[in-house]
Amino acid sequence: MRAVLMQDEKLRVAEVPEPTPGPGEVLVDVLACGICGSDLHAMHHGEDLNATTKAVVGFEMMDLSKPLVFGHEFVGRVASYGPNTDQKIPVGRRVVSMPILAREAPVFLGFQGPDAPGAYAEKMLLSEPLLIEVPDEMSTELAALTEPMAVAYRAVGHAGLGADDVPLVVGCGPIGLAIIAVLKMKGIGPIVAADFSPERRELAQRLGADVVVDPAQSSPYEAFIAAAATDDPARMAPPTGMLGQMPFRRTVAFECVGVPNLIQQIISGVPAGSTIVVVGVNMESDAFMPAQCMMKEIALKFSAYYTPQEFAETFALLAAGKIDAAPLLTGTVGLDGIADAFERLANNPHDAKIIVDPSL
Amino acid sequence: MRAVLMQDEKLRVAEVPEPTPGPGEVLVDVLACGICGSDLHAMHHGEDLNATTKAVVGFEMMDLSKPLVFGHEFVGRVASYGPNTDQKIPVGRRVVSMPILAREAPVFLGFQGPDAPGAYAEKMLLSEPLLIEVPDEMSTELAALTEPMAVAYRAVGHAGLGADDVPLVVGCGPIGLAIIAVLKMKGIGPIVAADFSPERRELAQRLGADVVVDPAQSSPYEAFIAAAATDDPARMAPPTGMLGQMPFRRTVAFECVGVPNLIQQIISGVPAGSTIVVVGVNMESDAFMPAQCMMKEIALKFSAYYTPQEFAETFALLAAGKIDAAPLLTGTVGLDGIADAFERLANNPHDAKIIVDPSL
Repeated sequence: MRAVLMQDEKLRVAEVPEPTPGPGEVLVDVLACGICGSDLHAMHHGEDLNATTKAVVGFEMMDLSKPLVFGHEFVGRVASYGPNTDQKIPVGRRVVSMPILAREAPVFLGFQGPDAPGAYAEKMLLSEPLLIEVPDEMSTELAALTEPMAVAYRAVGHAGLGADDVPLVVGCGPIGLAIIAVLKMKGIGPIVAADFSPERRELAQRLGADVVVDPAQSSPYEAFIAAAATDDPARMAPPTGMLGQMPFRRTVAFECVGVPNLIQQIISGVPAGSTIVVVGVNMESDAFMPAQCMMKEIALKFSAYYTPQEFAETFALLAAGKIDAAPLLTGTVGLDGIADAFERLANNPHDAKIIVDPSL
Repeated sequence: MRAVLMQDEKLRVAEVPEPTPGPGEVLVDVLACGICGSDLHAMHHGEDLNATTKAVVGFEMMDLSKPLVFGHEFVGRVASYGPNTDQKIPVGRRVVSMPILAREAPVFLGFQGPDAPGAYAEKMLLSEPLLIEVPDEMSTELAALTEPMAVAYRAVGHAGLGADDVPLVVGCGPIGLAIIAVLKMKGIGPIVAADFSPERRELAQRLGADVVVDPAQSSPYEAFIAAAATDDPARMAPPTGMLGQMPFRRTVAFECVGVPNLIQQIISGVPAGSTIVVVGVNMESDAFMPAQCMMKEIALKFSAYYTPQEFAETFALLAAGKIDAAPLLTGTVGLDGIADAFERLANNPHDAKIIVDPSL
């Protein structure tokens, strides 16, 4: 089968052996797979990512000495079942799954070699118990958004938002846009969103942002403060210890970029008592001012990935049309187009979600 | 009257004019005042503190060009009332108060000049509406602990602790010890506490720590993980997105030191899903690894000061004997002894709370 191999920070299409489903596993034809910022991170900062997993869980996430097959936001079509399977979903049906093979040592799909490939390939292996069948009325492209939308769904859950809270989304790449869609679904607003790209600001508005700001032109934090301002004591955030009651509703900022110094910029900009949910991935060491955090009583919450339940809930919300994520889809490429798409996403970030269709 | 003046990072006892209570204000004889780590910070890092308040609220906290009178953890005895006062608390009665003069522009007592002195003086001004009368059966020294205990009370409240959560207290100075006392009062445990000083570890045990660790000998984080370990899925912390369910109860670490790099040390050491409440004051820029925070889904919550309600609740708990804070009291000095006590606290941190008694 054809697959896109990543090695030495380069991508190439190659012919590799088709993987064989083990007990409890299923072989699927890949129908669609979103390109994720994590893939770009893993390609260009693989050593840093390995250092982080080594520090946190004691082993390296990727074997960078061998070619890897990326792709973890996928929809497949059941092609054949391995041994010890129930086979309740017929061959030919479409499925999504968390990108995990539930082996004795769980395998994170999308960061392994061609024997357990990610979805930048014609076929891949999935674990039968993790399959979710895609209903006929749901498009393949929309189902492929389940994974990134689940990341956003968890991040918004992490924020512990009240109905009257005001959110700021810093960075309108795919995850920032996905967070806007989830906030909109939850009826939280006004939603303030900031991005340097006019295309992405327009997408932010289509997904539900009420106020969009070009940080090159004006301060997102001033817009945020204006949106959160209230004279009604009943709507004000709980008082901070040091600064007392402030004339703002409770404020929550989402860091959806992942570059050094942005967290401190947000700390400086937001009202006292703000929660900052960090979803952007910055692999480097970062600097911040604890005394400012303290005086403002900032809460910094880091959110990553999702639980199986959150993945399933997100899928259900997408399938039911309760989250309107379709505007996220801004392009489709074949396996041959992935390298170019990576370049586009890295250097000219006007796209949101580019879908890979291996049949193209 | 006699007062201790701070100028150019030095303390000296001087004779200054007695302040005059304005409308709604009361003159009190200072009976006792605790020495706070903030005073040491304000003396040696005054410029940094001013820079922080300038950045956050737009003005400098202290006028470092003039002598200042520190002291904000006090008990006074009502000496005389100013105009427009109700005078419900008789002259001669003991009172505590938040260290604020409720003037049109609120004055933070303990960081101003001799016209609105802190409690390192024989007399000071308070605002009548903020007074809380000390009952006869409560000792003056215990009442003087209201302020630091209120800081701990808020910090523990910030942690959002559940009944089955396991706390780690990093640093057993006055605030770390106060947090241990509040955790004990709330029945949270086992309480793990770490400090390099054997005297402070012993104090930690007297205040309620169940496990004490000398970081020079063994890892506080290993002790923390051992204390939090559980095989019972019903007691485990909610799963993190990336690392899933971990075999630990929910874990909350309190940073009670305030030195650079300690926050990242705690991030590296604690189990995934931990909350870190930062109470220690570090005025410098600090470095941390956001990617580690993300993989572990750390929540960093900064806590400072307290609300009037928290101050009153803390006083009531102390007065009722529900918080056992007495072991915190490790020494008493007169005004002449403050400079020495500052030295002791800075260079030989075996003391906890040193009380200033201006009558000595």
